[in-house]
Amino acid sequence: MKYMDFKKLENQYKTELLDNVLPFWLEHSLDKEFGGYFTCLNRKGNVFDTDKFIWLQARQVWMFSMMYNNVEKCREWLDCALLGGEFLKNHGHDGNLNWYFSLDRKGNPLIEPYNIFSYTFATMAFAQLGKATGNAEYAEIARKTFDIILSKTDNPKGKWNKAVAGTRPLKNFALPMILCNLGLEIEHLLDESMLKELMESCIHEIMDVFYRPELGGIIVENVTVDGELSDTFDGRLLNPGHAIEAMWFLMNLGERLQRPELINDAVKITVKMLEYGWDKEYGGIFYFMDRLGHPTQQLEWDQKLWWVHIESLISLLKGYSFTKSQECLDWYQKVHDYTWKHFKDDEYPEWYGYLNRRGEVLLPLKGGKWKGCFHVPRGMYQCWKILEKINSEENIGITKQIISYS
Amino acid sequence: MKYMDFKKLENQYKTELLDNVLPFWLEHSLDKEFGGYFTCLNRKGNVFDTDKFIWLQARQVWMFSMMYNNVEKCREWLDCALLGGEFLKNHGHDGNLNWYFSLDRKGNPLIEPYNIFSYTFATMAFAQLGKATGNAEYAEIARKTFDIILSKTDNPKGKWNKAVAGTRPLKNFALPMILCNLGLEIEHLLDESMLKELMESCIHEIMDVFYRPELGGIIVENVTVDGELSDTFDGRLLNPGHAIEAMWFLMNLGERLQRPELINDAVKITVKMLEYGWDKEYGGIFYFMDRLGHPTQQLEWDQKLWWVHIESLISLLKGYSFTKSQECLDWYQKVHDYTWKHFKDDEYPEWYGYLNRRGEVLLPLKGGKWKGCFHVPRGMYQCWKILEKINSEENIGITKQIISYS
Repeated sequence: MKYMDFKKLENQYKTELLDNVLPFWLEHSLDKEFGGYFTCLNRKGNVFDTDKFIWLQARQVWMFSMMYNNVEKCREWLDCALLGGEFLKNHGHDGNLNWYFSLDRKGNPLIEPYNIFSYTFATMAFAQLGKATGNAEYAEIARKTFDIILSKTDNPKGKWNKAVAGTRPLKNFALPMILCNLGLEIEHLLDESMLKELMESCIHEIMDVFYRPELGGIIVENVTVDGELSDTFDGRLLNPGHAIEAMWFLMNLGERLQRPELINDAVKITVKMLEYGWDKEYGGIFYFMDRLGHPTQQLEWDQKLWWVHIESLISLLKGYSFTKSQECLDWYQKVHDYTWKHFKDDEYPEWYGYLNRRGEVLLPLKGGKWKGCFHVPRGMYQCWKILEKINSEENIGITKQIISYS
Repeated sequence: MKYMDFKKLENQYKTELLDNVLPFWLEHSLDKEFGGYFTCLNRKGNVFDTDKFIWLQARQVWMFSMMYNNVEKCREWLDCALLGGEFLKNHGHDGNLNWYFSLDRKGNPLIEPYNIFSYTFATMAFAQLGKATGNAEYAEIARKTFDIILSKTDNPKGKWNKAVAGTRPLKNFALPMILCNLGLEIEHLLDESMLKELMESCIHEIMDVFYRPELGGIIVENVTVDGELSDTFDGRLLNPGHAIEAMWFLMNLGERLQRPELINDAVKITVKMLEYGWDKEYGGIFYFMDRLGHPTQQLEWDQKLWWVHIESLISLLKGYSFTKSQECLDWYQKVHDYTWKHFKDDEYPEWYGYLNRRGEVLLPLKGGKWKGCFHVPRGMYQCWKILEKINSEENIGITKQIISYS
């Protein structure tokens, strides 16, 4: 038994964001010579590779624009967002808003626009940057890119798709999951009917297609286009972090649409996926699993990844804030303890991204090809704000919430 | 100090091949209903997935044909090879010998012919099967597929290549390395001048391009098309197992061309890559490394893979048999001990494929998407035959070779 000090927690996330994580990126990632950001940063923040990945460029533009819009009109944050925004506008796409996957340091394209998530993160970035600057050009980039995304939903990889058409048509959880969040992100650019339609469609895809009550209430990564389970490597795949991240997007939709039952469902699924994905031997949440317990294709299946744990914190805390579920709070405490203990680097700023099954550092980096200025600071921001809301609702200095604690 | 009993070793590899590994595949992998082989087999040999991967289908055809050609005219082996050969002939390609990457159980194509190694293993398979059966159709498939490979060397992935042309043209070690072996594999199908040209070109690529004396004598996975080092994720990448496997192919070329200096170089590189790739903390050979010590892109970098260790055994033993290098023999002993201790399953047949850094089983499978009836049995066969040669040369029952032994 232990008291949970929500006020202290609020301060912990806020301080980590403002005094540790954001300063790290401002100090180490800005490419003042060519624009954009370095994201391949070693433990101390030194650049070890200069390639620029569109996912991460866009996510950092989004992060600093969002901070500027929601927290404080800080000029340094806006300048940082603009450094990436201008670089992306000038080099990130082929001239028709087809967003490359990666560029070299100077902005020359390296990898073709095969990846739909380059588009989704560009949309998020330019929508927030448009809001921050009032610049209509940015908003237009966001809106037009969003239209291209919608036109690609049936075959996101286009001509780079290596699956033979027709033999085993599967659909994947990632795009509806991301659209779930993207809708509210760019709400100010969409008309009400389009937003409504998008939200309903995402809720349908997640709750009626990828969520499987017959499997005990878990979310699978791939189903057939008819919505059936598939006993194949892809069809057996589970990605607990992915499913759990989608749950806080869904809770946001539940709040927006005033549907408490949707929030309740999202909380239940969050807890179920945690029970399923938690490593009972070493702690932490597995990266990939097979729903029939077979070996996965993914050799990294047992690794512990930063984003999986941070997204879980958001879903658990948000779930608790809406429902006051004790189960949610217990899991939150457990994941919080694991995450802060293993991912945070106590000697140097920012957090590790990749741990082995035992929770030991696997790659001593703070940023790379996939880890940038995104999940850690967004998670800190989200948890800070949820805790702020919990604290203001309860309206006392220190909330002493008794929790069962293992 | 310890005596090395080459006669006992010869018997160990031979017995493992004939009494353990080949019977496992004959018992569990044959799809008598639809043809071809199951390769996704769990610890006990039960099928957990029925997809058919062209690399593995072709390699098993090659393995059983080769055994039939080189060891014994065993009808069961030939029938096994034919089961896969006919399946591949009928379903493995698009009608024009463009070899798919994978098929479903019935032979419907799943993944397009984007992968050049589907072609190289098909060539090996049909060349050996042609030899085994005397069937000219098989030989023709091999020869024609080989011509297609040569026509694709500049851009093996063709339209599925996601790299933007021109920005950062790199060339990769894998294809020249595989061709190095393929030349001798299909020698009976090539005219002498073509074979000579192919051999010289492979030797040049490996020794003058990918082998880097200025880095202390290691082999890198990618260089620029001008043969320069590249300080990029791909350009920094090392794959010790890959480099070491190439060295026994090179020794074979050295023997074929009667160039002892080439064999000596290959032995030196084998030892250098082992010194470089050996995990001083937990033992075993790393899967991927970065030549500047930066974090790799590959999350599986520290894992210990069966093929890396088995190919190393072949190169070390072959190197020893040619040069009688004590260093080679010491390393052989070390890798032999690690490999048999960690990869062989003492309770059930066949070997594990994937261990974590500590040498613990990561995936409890005997076959999967990438591990089939190939590296383990080929390695057992190669070591058996090399030891047989060592033993026959020394012409005594037990060779007592004093080796230093850690």
